[in-house]
Amino acid sequence: MGERLLVIGGDAAGMSAASAARRRERDLEVLVLERGPYTSYSACGIPYYLGGLFDDSDRLIARTPEEFRSRGIDVAIRTEAVGLDLDARTVTVRDLAARTQRTEGFDRLVVATGAQAVAPPVPGADAVEPVRTVDAAERFAARLRHGDARCAVVVGASYLGLEMAEALVQRGLEVTLLDQAPQVMGTLDPDMAEHVRTAAEGVGIRVLLSAQVDEVLRHDDGSVRAVATSEGELRADEVVLSTGVRPAVGVAQEAGLEVGESGALAVDDRQRCRGADGVFAAGDCAESHHRLLDRQVNIQLGTHANKQGRIAGVNATGGDDAFPGVIGTAVSKICRYEVARTGLTEAEAAGAGIEVVAASISAKTRAGYYPGAGPISVKLVADPADGRLLGGQIVGVEGAAKRIDVLAVAVWTGMRVQDLELVDLSYAPPFSGVYDPLLIAARQTAKRIGG
Amino acid sequence: MGERLLVIGGDAAGMSAASAARRRERDLEVLVLERGPYTSYSACGIPYYLGGLFDDSDRLIARTPEEFRSRGIDVAIRTEAVGLDLDARTVTVRDLAARTQRTEGFDRLVVATGAQAVAPPVPGADAVEPVRTVDAAERFAARLRHGDARCAVVVGASYLGLEMAEALVQRGLEVTLLDQAPQVMGTLDPDMAEHVRTAAEGVGIRVLLSAQVDEVLRHDDGSVRAVATSEGELRADEVVLSTGVRPAVGVAQEAGLEVGESGALAVDDRQRCRGADGVFAAGDCAESHHRLLDRQVNIQLGTHANKQGRIAGVNATGGDDAFPGVIGTAVSKICRYEVARTGLTEAEAAGAGIEVVAASISAKTRAGYYPGAGPISVKLVADPADGRLLGGQIVGVEGAAKRIDVLAVAVWTGMRVQDLELVDLSYAPPFSGVYDPLLIAARQTAKRIGG
Repeated sequence: MGERLLVIGGDAAGMSAASAARRRERDLEVLVLERGPYTSYSACGIPYYLGGLFDDSDRLIARTPEEFRSRGIDVAIRTEAVGLDLDARTVTVRDLAARTQRTEGFDRLVVATGAQAVAPPVPGADAVEPVRTVDAAERFAARLRHGDARCAVVVGASYLGLEMAEALVQRGLEVTLLDQAPQVMGTLDPDMAEHVRTAAEGVGIRVLLSAQVDEVLRHDDGSVRAVATSEGELRADEVVLSTGVRPAVGVAQEAGLEVGESGALAVDDRQRCRGADGVFAAGDCAESHHRLLDRQVNIQLGTHANKQGRIAGVNATGGDDAFPGVIGTAVSKICRYEVARTGLTEAEAAGAGIEVVAASISAKTRAGYYPGAGPISVKLVADPADGRLLGGQIVGVEGAAKRIDVLAVAVWTGMRVQDLELVDLSYAPPFSGVYDPLLIAARQTAKRIGG
Repeated sequence: MGERLLVIGGDAAGMSAASAARRRERDLEVLVLERGPYTSYSACGIPYYLGGLFDDSDRLIARTPEEFRSRGIDVAIRTEAVGLDLDARTVTVRDLAARTQRTEGFDRLVVATGAQAVAPPVPGADAVEPVRTVDAAERFAARLRHGDARCAVVVGASYLGLEMAEALVQRGLEVTLLDQAPQVMGTLDPDMAEHVRTAAEGVGIRVLLSAQVDEVLRHDDGSVRAVATSEGELRADEVVLSTGVRPAVGVAQEAGLEVGESGALAVDDRQRCRGADGVFAAGDCAESHHRLLDRQVNIQLGTHANKQGRIAGVNATGGDDAFPGVIGTAVSKICRYEVARTGLTEAEAAGAGIEVVAASISAKTRAGYYPGAGPISVKLVADPADGRLLGGQIVGVEGAAKRIDVLAVAVWTGMRVQDLELVDLSYAPPFSGVYDPLLIAARQTAKRIGG
């Protein structure tokens, strides 16, 4: 029998780590502890499931515990790690079904405990179940199918709050979306976010900005009845709290693993936890290096979780892969709009004391005469000294958003907008005007550089 | 009165040059000579017009001669340049309507004469009208509307031949598409082209490969009746010859302007014709520098024509803009598939004596559970020494093709596949699986580098 790799958390990062380790070291024992009933599911897909785009929640599961077991990975579901002893190399484990506790030893450890929702600090909010897992989504969907909910309040107008609001509209509910900020999608600059607000209102979502939640009010039977807000009391048969998440680092931090300024576990680019030999962290609970800000951040996305998990698994088995960091790329579909960003926004740059120039353009996604052509807005942010592209934001109809990846590679490689303006991008009428909107935006930005 | 800029050719390159010059030098006289009745039209849109995606051919016209005139650009339509004297600084001009001839002087000249179709060297082919202009497309559309054509033969399975074949299928014709090569789309590697052939056959196009045209046969009234081929005689009420184009350089070459190996006018990166002061060329009639092959090529695309035209107009008015060259990016929509390429194919690399490694992957355009998810195939070509990305090809359903621009920027900047594999590209279920197909392809290619 070889050594044992213990993985805490059976979602994207944990299962990627387990799979990579399993492939690389055949006599390694790999045990994954997962608190919930499912492994390797797509939390990102939950709004689409709730909105009725598909009915079978199984489709959110990439691989079941049985599939992992058939590949030689032992998975204990409904099993929570409640204690960690780095010196003794043991984890205290609670079997949530049997309500028993035991100890599991490890030689190497991957912490992939993910993140947990943060409820707003108001009465009644704690009791609202977060919809972050497949089983929570199934319970919510069952209520929507069988209940008679008519009104919903979604608190928090992040991309997830917007996706949930749209899902509930698709289910026929009257939805109010509320945020304390003066704009939706705080990850976009206000001018770009305004397009998204308009789209949300266009599908019937009532958007209340600069608004405070005071209390979640309940019927005598405990079910939600309303949300008290600075804009008055809003009837709510369902409440969704989308007010942020924080890295789930409790057990790891208590054991002495270092937590960085972002609140996530401090790791190096090999996903190694600082000062703890053979201990790795990956995914939503871990920090990532932001290549533009040159500091550690915590960005919770499945794409980072998968990559970091794989790298942790490789490095836990003698490899030496590096995670190159992040630049804040994200994409979402909000009502009729696709919304995407990469690098720094103007606001983020200002917050970090980085001087930038920015330019915005509006164009069409396709040649004007081609069916389906629709609006696309592009905003670019660049270094005023040399024109280096520092970030981009895109809002537009179908075909708009994936263009963000072009900007992501340009930001990643340090391309200047003066060069981007003349890059050989593709053109055909079903896909763009003869100047792609990205080229037009680069040209407008370059003009502000004087380049 | 200032000096006079003469522009020969009133489509993308010529009108871009005229517009840029007009903006920059207010007392410059700008005269454009255009052989046809229209300026600044989208030849790329003709197949979609013929296929019935829109009915009004005016929509193919970006700007009319009147609009240009209102901006201070003089446009003479139905006016052909038939002679050029570089020493005398004059152009001999034929008014095609009045059938008269005159001489126009110039101080500076932009040659933007475009390209002309090359008919196969077989009897009867010369008399088939090319469908490269809006007026030719209008005549073709009128025949399709009012005639009783049932069968069509399209010769040449380039992207344009495929687009035309699809358009005619959409008009209800039985279409045979024939090419002498053993594959469709010679600009793709055979394995990727095979997906396209399958898609073409899927919409009912009969595809005959490795087939020769022997003669275009006619009724006594001169109308087409059949095409004699190595596969037998094919009934054809309409024939489309899509067997290539060549730069229209006749007048310029006779005047002594240098023609390069590609058959197009030799220009430097300022669009200056060699050895001819104040004379520029741009668009389909001009050469471009291929950044990977490091030689002059002639790639006829509206996107290059617009950029080169603008640069010619800037430099003809005292500016110093450079065209940075091309990398062979192209995109097309063929039946259910989007098809795109950038950089070098495996075949092109072999032809140029460049050693490469290649890898192909198949994935889905969206998360598997998200409606509309469909197949996407990606092939990457890289330098085996260091993993530098040299080219990419993509075939897939909606959402697939514009990803080529990500690869275009990666090729342009010399990114290695080992780096591309971990770039922060966007992910959300409506847009990709958690690993974008480009990341999967980069990873597979990197494995072959041993990186």
